[in-house]
Order: sequence, then structure tokens, then C-alpha cells
Amino acid sequence: MSTIQNYVVTGMTCGHCESAIRDEVSLIAHVQHVDVSAATGRLTVSADQPVDDAIVMAAVDAAGYRAVRS
Amino acid sequence: MSTIQNYVVTGMTCGHCESAIRDEVSLIAHVQHVDVSAATGRLTVSADQPVDDAIVMAAVDAAGYRAVRS
Repeated sequence: MSTIQNYVVTGMTCGHCESAIRDEVSLIAHVQHVDVSAATGRLTVSADQPVDDAIVMAAVDAAGYRAVRS
Repeated sequence: MSTIQNYVVTGMTCGHCESAIRDEVSLIAHVQHVDVSAATGRLTVSADQPVDDAIVMAAVDAAGYRAVRS
């Protein structure tokens, strides 16, 4: 099963910010693809099974940003 | 002899941008300290002898930004 979860991330300003979030979220088990945009503030996480929102938020927090499910 | 050279850098938006520039400029021979601020757009290079502006600008360019001497 493939799942897609969407979040809004605040605080991103540039490509480095996107990379920092992509790197952290990509480490989460089952995550297959991470799409993140500083321009839109959107984070889309594709995984082979649902991922706990708290884990995604913690990964974004570890990168220095804040995410909420959208 | 210790020298200080100041530049204005365009395009920095966050701490990652500052780090990218600091990392590149710190690699230049004779550079002892690099102070860079996304908030002000200022880059200050301290070195034990004068550094060629073109080398500083090339390092900033390598990080993905643009510097001019100020």
C-alpha cells in the first residue's frame, strides 16, 4: 500500500531549508519519497505504509522547522 | 599583518546560507575568521594578509551567492 501525507511547514526560506527537511524526513522508516517546497511551504511524504504524524513532525523539528498536518 | 575585508552578499535568506558561505570562504588561504550575516547581507573576512577580492567572490559564487566589495 502506498500512502501520501501532506503537511504545512513554516520557516523555510531557501533550498538549504528544503534539503535539511528532506534529509531528516527521508530517514523515517517506510518513507519512499519526500517532496518539499520553500516557495509553497508544503511537505508531501510518500510511504509504503502510513507514517505516524508525530514522527514526521519530530523529523521536521530536528531539521529546525515546524510542521502541521494539512 | 592582520587585514579585514568587507563585502555585501546578495541572496542569503537563512543560517544555512550563512554556513554555506562561511564554509567556502574559510577554505581560502590566509583566512582566519569569517563573519557573515543573512540579516544584514554583510560578509567580513579576516586574514593574516590581504586576500584577492576575486578569490573571495569566487568562493561566495561557489556557495551559490554573489558578493561585491564594500
